[in-house]
Amino acid sequence: MSSVASRRRDFTARYLVESFEPIEKAAEVIAGEQSSGTFLQLPGETADLKQRSRARVVSVELLEDRATPSLPNAFADRKGTTGPYHRGIVEVSFPIDNVGPNLPNLYATIAGNLFELGDVTGLRVLDLDLPDEYTAQFPGPAFGADGTRSVTQVYGRPVIGTIIKPSIGLSPEDTAALVDTLCAADIDFIKDDELMGNPPYAPLEARVKAVMKVVNRHADRMGRKVMVAFNISDDIDAMRRHHDLVVREGGTCVMASVNWTGPAAITALRRHSEVPIHGHRNGFGMMNRDPALGLDFRVYQKLWRLAGIDQLHVNGLKSKFWEGDESVIASAKACMEPFAGSKPIMPVFSSGQTAAQPPATYAALQSTDLMFLAGGGIIGHPSGPKAGVQSLVEAWQAAVEGVDLTEYAHSRPALREALAAFGGRGRG
Amino acid sequence: MSSVASRRRDFTARYLVESFEPIEKAAEVIAGEQSSGTFLQLPGETADLKQRSRARVVSVELLEDRATPSLPNAFADRKGTTGPYHRGIVEVSFPIDNVGPNLPNLYATIAGNLFELGDVTGLRVLDLDLPDEYTAQFPGPAFGADGTRSVTQVYGRPVIGTIIKPSIGLSPEDTAALVDTLCAADIDFIKDDELMGNPPYAPLEARVKAVMKVVNRHADRMGRKVMVAFNISDDIDAMRRHHDLVVREGGTCVMASVNWTGPAAITALRRHSEVPIHGHRNGFGMMNRDPALGLDFRVYQKLWRLAGIDQLHVNGLKSKFWEGDESVIASAKACMEPFAGSKPIMPVFSSGQTAAQPPATYAALQSTDLMFLAGGGIIGHPSGPKAGVQSLVEAWQAAVEGVDLTEYAHSRPALREALAAFGGRGRG
Repeated sequence: MSSVASRRRDFTARYLVESFEPIEKAAEVIAGEQSSGTFLQLPGETADLKQRSRARVVSVELLEDRATPSLPNAFADRKGTTGPYHRGIVEVSFPIDNVGPNLPNLYATIAGNLFELGDVTGLRVLDLDLPDEYTAQFPGPAFGADGTRSVTQVYGRPVIGTIIKPSIGLSPEDTAALVDTLCAADIDFIKDDELMGNPPYAPLEARVKAVMKVVNRHADRMGRKVMVAFNISDDIDAMRRHHDLVVREGGTCVMASVNWTGPAAITALRRHSEVPIHGHRNGFGMMNRDPALGLDFRVYQKLWRLAGIDQLHVNGLKSKFWEGDESVIASAKACMEPFAGSKPIMPVFSSGQTAAQPPATYAALQSTDLMFLAGGGIIGHPSGPKAGVQSLVEAWQAAVEGVDLTEYAHSRPALREALAAFGGRGRG
Repeated sequence: MSSVASRRRDFTARYLVESFEPIEKAAEVIAGEQSSGTFLQLPGETADLKQRSRARVVSVELLEDRATPSLPNAFADRKGTTGPYHRGIVEVSFPIDNVGPNLPNLYATIAGNLFELGDVTGLRVLDLDLPDEYTAQFPGPAFGADGTRSVTQVYGRPVIGTIIKPSIGLSPEDTAALVDTLCAADIDFIKDDELMGNPPYAPLEARVKAVMKVVNRHADRMGRKVMVAFNISDDIDAMRRHHDLVVREGGTCVMASVNWTGPAAITALRRHSEVPIHGHRNGFGMMNRDPALGLDFRVYQKLWRLAGIDQLHVNGLKSKFWEGDESVIASAKACMEPFAGSKPIMPVFSSGQTAAQPPATYAALQSTDLMFLAGGGIIGHPSGPKAGVQSLVEAWQAAVEGVDLTEYAHSRPALREALAAFGGRGRG
């Protein structure tokens, strides 16, 4: 049995746990539920099997109790539980051999039914640590941050981009005309809205052809090609066809709504794709906004990096979304960190971003390895989209050089106008 | 323009909305965000486009205000919002042509970034109504409840099943031995635990072969074949290979963790599969347990029916999970209802189920079109698994015949022992 134990290799997950039980006890329930099973000693559960397969509680760090439960719990109500509700950070160690190189099963193991447990009134997966030799079995990002730079040929500043607006309703020709304007504005990156897929009034094929014709033409002029993230979200066979269409027309990026296509499809897309994958996280709020439930972005981005995306949304500072600035910065830093041998990816800042946010963003990150998307901040610029793009480039220059934004704007009309128009406030 | 309007066909989604703004205003933000876009009048957003693409608020039903917000909101904090927090049920109508027959895009449209909005402090998708001619474009369940009955040849009572335990760690031979015992107990259905996939110590191929050899042998004796739901969750190409293996060995069901494989993969699996798809919802708690966030099961099961699953987990009465009995019953009823031309599917009751729960379950549902899974309730029966299965069959007979369970047990030792052993309490 010691030979089994010595061969056992583990990975660990970290949880926020809230329970009416002592946290140590809740932690053991979690470890049991997510490995060999119930508390019952079952016929087939030998000591050897337990040694090989049972998850183990590595550490428990107690936090302050709460008087009221964070989440509803009919199981506890039936027991007449009144509290207090204990809280703690629990680290659990799982045998790698329980899972194998299988992303859906990794999710089922670290999360699975845990959110449903009657033993807890709060459960959030905070982090995941995987050994390099295990992550090496997953595809991982093919391009990542560095590859996104090589493909766009944008260096020394963020990749500056925008979202095609209106979000939905434009014909292929209208879309191409807008892309023409944006390419003429020397933009780096353009993306579909997540609502825009393959609708009857603007089929993807017609849209890709019309848009890429414009983009390819500007590439001759610019000496680099504007990266367009076409939303190819669909069933996986259609996604592969859509990808092939994009590549055939000279496109350099595909986008997918990661939550709504899913890990099994994104992994397959990654193995097929010849271009960077832009990961749109719409829907993430449902699994993240309650601080006592779901998945922290830190673990979320690791799981999507295993699947192989190259770019992932993180919201932006002072955006129109609920998320606070510290949380946005923590998300971006997580994307930029190495993770078990997998390439850093590009965090994508968006929602209400204008020339006003770069200084605070850079001050917090000390890096420009990111994508910075502005909708109104580019297209709503008083002097038009070219000045909009220019204002963002200048705002990032000021940020990197450590010069006060208003001072930097004195001799730069595009930036000056942007600050006057958008002020300190963000804009959609 | 009236011709455009007359051609516009819509579907509707219903939301619980909580906001510091009047609900009518928050409703308009939602309709805008999820269709033509921002509040800004953009260059390309013509009146015709708006008429064709803009989502519309159909109705707003006000609920009681709350003094405190359900969800955190840094956006509101920056504005110094103090409440009250208004609540309402909002119905929004979307043009079908915004989406097309594309499941990931349907998710992005009805949910998407809504959970992230700074305008709300609560957002839950409650329901979705789709016209028949739209749902007809999605695969839908190939088997559903009726097909599950034809394949298992179980009529007039629930399909009775169990989960292989220990959840993880058994070798293919150990698993086959356990399946042999369960088949000898005349069970209808056996499923893998969601943690069990294709691990190095028990590769799926070896496990399927060993298990199906046993199942096929018992089928000769029983005149029907025990349905085994093998967990084939993996990347989609592997899932199709796993499916083919299961079918080649005579298997009649495949199982997938729907949240961790995802809509794009399940749709593709459905188009490929020759057997019913057992949908495991592990992870659903993260998008459902906070009552002010995420997806109600009612809409969740509709979306998975569009993808094409045939069976879906709903927990069980008095289970070890957090969910209350009313919610479980509502979930089961939702699966049993027709939905826009798509077949009813089988709700799967599990977690702590024993012979004690059938009367209350049947009283609430007035139907046996369900799967009823017990772990300890079968394998932990004092007289062994055969008596365990028998006790469940008898408990369902009592429920359907409207006879008191204890009275029914007088002349039935398997049921009597089960009630004595498990009492009114459920058991893992």
